[in-house]
Amino acid sequence: MARLSHCLQPHFSPVHLVAYRRLLHVELTAERYAVKRGPFASITKKDLNIFQSIVGPDHVLEGKDVDAFNTDWLRTARGQSQVAVRPRTTKEVSEIMRYCNDRKLAVCPQGGNTGLCAGSVPVFDEVVLLLSRMTTVEKVDPVSGVAVCEAGVVLESLDRTVRRDGLIVPLDLGAKGSCQIGGNVSTNAGGLRLLRYGSLHGSVLGVEAVLADGTVMDCLSTMRKDNTGYDLKQLFIGSEGTLGIVTRVSILCPPKPRSVKVAFLAVPTWRDVLNVFRSAKQELGEIMSAFEFLDNHSMEVHSRNPNMKVRNPIGASPFYVVIETHGSNAAHDDEKLHQALESTMGQGFVTDGTVGASETQCLELWSLRERIAESLTHDGYCYKYDISLPHDIMYDVVLECRERMGNLATTTVGYGHIGDSNLHLNVTSPEYCKEIMDLLEPWLQEVTGKHNGSVSAEHGLGFKKKDQIFFSKSQEAVTQMQLLKKVFDPNSILNPYKTIPASE
Amino acid sequence: MARLSHCLQPHFSPVHLVAYRRLLHVELTAERYAVKRGPFASITKKDLNIFQSIVGPDHVLEGKDVDAFNTDWLRTARGQSQVAVRPRTTKEVSEIMRYCNDRKLAVCPQGGNTGLCAGSVPVFDEVVLLLSRMTTVEKVDPVSGVAVCEAGVVLESLDRTVRRDGLIVPLDLGAKGSCQIGGNVSTNAGGLRLLRYGSLHGSVLGVEAVLADGTVMDCLSTMRKDNTGYDLKQLFIGSEGTLGIVTRVSILCPPKPRSVKVAFLAVPTWRDVLNVFRSAKQELGEIMSAFEFLDNHSMEVHSRNPNMKVRNPIGASPFYVVIETHGSNAAHDDEKLHQALESTMGQGFVTDGTVGASETQCLELWSLRERIAESLTHDGYCYKYDISLPHDIMYDVVLECRERMGNLATTTVGYGHIGDSNLHLNVTSPEYCKEIMDLLEPWLQEVTGKHNGSVSAEHGLGFKKKDQIFFSKSQEAVTQMQLLKKVFDPNSILNPYKTIPASE
Repeated sequence: MARLSHCLQPHFSPVHLVAYRRLLHVELTAERYAVKRGPFASITKKDLNIFQSIVGPDHVLEGKDVDAFNTDWLRTARGQSQVAVRPRTTKEVSEIMRYCNDRKLAVCPQGGNTGLCAGSVPVFDEVVLLLSRMTTVEKVDPVSGVAVCEAGVVLESLDRTVRRDGLIVPLDLGAKGSCQIGGNVSTNAGGLRLLRYGSLHGSVLGVEAVLADGTVMDCLSTMRKDNTGYDLKQLFIGSEGTLGIVTRVSILCPPKPRSVKVAFLAVPTWRDVLNVFRSAKQELGEIMSAFEFLDNHSMEVHSRNPNMKVRNPIGASPFYVVIETHGSNAAHDDEKLHQALESTMGQGFVTDGTVGASETQCLELWSLRERIAESLTHDGYCYKYDISLPHDIMYDVVLECRERMGNLATTTVGYGHIGDSNLHLNVTSPEYCKEIMDLLEPWLQEVTGKHNGSVSAEHGLGFKKKDQIFFSKSQEAVTQMQLLKKVFDPNSILNPYKTIPASE
Repeated sequence: MARLSHCLQPHFSPVHLVAYRRLLHVELTAERYAVKRGPFASITKKDLNIFQSIVGPDHVLEGKDVDAFNTDWLRTARGQSQVAVRPRTTKEVSEIMRYCNDRKLAVCPQGGNTGLCAGSVPVFDEVVLLLSRMTTVEKVDPVSGVAVCEAGVVLESLDRTVRRDGLIVPLDLGAKGSCQIGGNVSTNAGGLRLLRYGSLHGSVLGVEAVLADGTVMDCLSTMRKDNTGYDLKQLFIGSEGTLGIVTRVSILCPPKPRSVKVAFLAVPTWRDVLNVFRSAKQELGEIMSAFEFLDNHSMEVHSRNPNMKVRNPIGASPFYVVIETHGSNAAHDDEKLHQALESTMGQGFVTDGTVGASETQCLELWSLRERIAESLTHDGYCYKYDISLPHDIMYDVVLECRERMGNLATTTVGYGHIGDSNLHLNVTSPEYCKEIMDLLEPWLQEVTGKHNGSVSAEHGLGFKKKDQIFFSKSQEAVTQMQLLKKVFDPNSILNPYKTIPASE
């Protein structure tokens, strides 16, 4: 395996790094981390025949064809699966699971593989179960706003479909072009507009999921209210495929706004970022749909990666804020936004800014925030943290982290969702460096725990963070989760090594 | 027990009925329904001493003092408990539960006892656990909008408290003056503004609950995003105290609107009710906070109960609609509302209407909708149904029901939450009448199931509806619920005979 020196100095030529990164051989997860294969069966020729009889011979992938599904989007984890199956229907998913459960074959369900904690790639030789052929949008009701679709529908494609009926999907995130709604539900993806449209625990009305033993759990209500027994579907939201495989989803879609506005603002201090937030909440009220921030270090990552083609349209500043509004009356929204900007500029909270004058301009402004994760990958290895913290100390953590890194890291950036108290703290280096990791962990989790934050706000725990659960959850809670896991998946075949620590 | 003729004719003198109702001896639940006491221990003198040592002698109620907690608000169910305990702290709740679990004493937790399915009153001699002394609002953060409080805080009182910090509780319902937030969470109460502020599954950020064995489950996050492991708190939302006793809640409160408007409209047909809804969604967009309806039969119940003191301020009409807006700019809201009313009246969807000119007037308009449940109780016995149905067939069910009732019932009314597809179908008669009941059930549940609706939209199943679960949930789902119940409460001591059928 090609290796640079143990830990390169920062500010390498970006072009060099990009070229280098593409060549990088991703270390095997099983080698990088101390993890032992579970007591599962291994795939035989007969198993392959059975899979082929269920999904058809074209939809059982083997060997090299499975490579892409073994490595995560960040290229930080690599499994060793030799088989991936692509069912078309819930019935096929059910048959595969029933068979795997009887055979004690471990299964790793995978949606768009855009997760950031290696939750959707195998660790050892789990059977990869791809939902990508389940792409039917079955129903969109323009009056109630409810859409029903299969799990493999790509988020952006679902959004495009419901827009024809005057609706939007309540969820929006950078990976929308590849991520699938089943994966979004399984990871309880948060995204850019949670502030306005709430979490999936509120907007997902129903879920159909296949349990480890093949049982089809039909909780696919399309009613906004249904208080008949325990709300089982909630357990599939955010459990990362460890309790069941989401096969269909019913989701409440808000009306498509008649007017969308985006402002990109320069803000001199963290205190002022919070002042702008408070002011925007008051002046924009019900039309605010997003309130995001990035720091100047995030902006620099864009500018030293010229092929990213995102440019800062305003003067340099320690912080930048993206405010978006969704409203039903353009004139009212204009007036509210104008009032909010006047008020924040008048008080000196904002020093410069621009408002998108067209849809294209709005998208360009959004890309400054949305494409940071992508820009960061050009640096080489990215240490990603996604934490919830109280507003007042949120950026102190970024500053302290940067200080800890000294010259070791290429960069330390902070960006994220102010509206949801959600910070994305990212550190990059040309390649994985244990020294950096030791400075980051468990320091960061301890700080987060100390402030009653969450060590994973929206990314989930997946493989990489499952041992961090105790920084945000009590032993009693984790024990209860382990008991639930036993009920839903007695043989522990569903997405093993992920989300919660295995029970003894 | 005093009894009128088996089934009285409708339109009795209301005053007579009120007087009669007050005298009504409520039949024992155990006598009216075929239900067998579970294999629980019975309270002894020693148990009482232990309870007294935990909560203090003043807070263990016995005999006559327990009467009020044995009967539900609707006076349709009556338990036989001889003991109620009133803990002050989570620790005391935990000690009581640990003791009861060891002794196999059944426990019925009770909040404000405003539930409509007899979920909060004992069936036999369960120990009633009252949360009414746990009334501390511990924290309100005006920036994040998060409030943390104990379970016994009355909803209206919590709302009053958070309003001081410019916030409102996202939940509002007719019983707000008595219901407690812990009970609201345990029943997943929906209410009048779910349309705007979403369900408690989205707005409750954290729950502290005590399990059957006394374990304190601390899932009391105050962060809007927390994806660390399974979202256990969701299981306590809507499980009616059968999986754990909610002791503390953290809830996201939206900003207090600067402008509140209420319109009360006369609408000639059901089709027009839906037309007005569609139009209001478009014109009012993000400021619409409620869209409710009542039929003329609901209005008549008010007028024949003059002591209710609610009067129709507009012309008689087959249907009435209440539209409320919550906004941040009064001028904008006025303009939007004006436009919406002009559009709906211009198209003939609305024939008459009034807009509240003051806070008092707005409250008066609201009371026409909010106090229907109360007015109905003056008729004697009320058969209450709370169902989710697709909009287009929703009122057909009311019409068909009225026809089925013929002369048997005093009245058959339909009202509810158009925005949430939630119909309250109510039938009254001077006293409980089996003939009526046999015409209502299972006909209504079958119709609801046939249209993929929910047999309990927001009231829960409690005691009275637990056997109806199969009309809205599959056998597989109910089996899974029974397995969860076993994990959380192996001895089945928590609120027995409720919510889900007991497993074999």
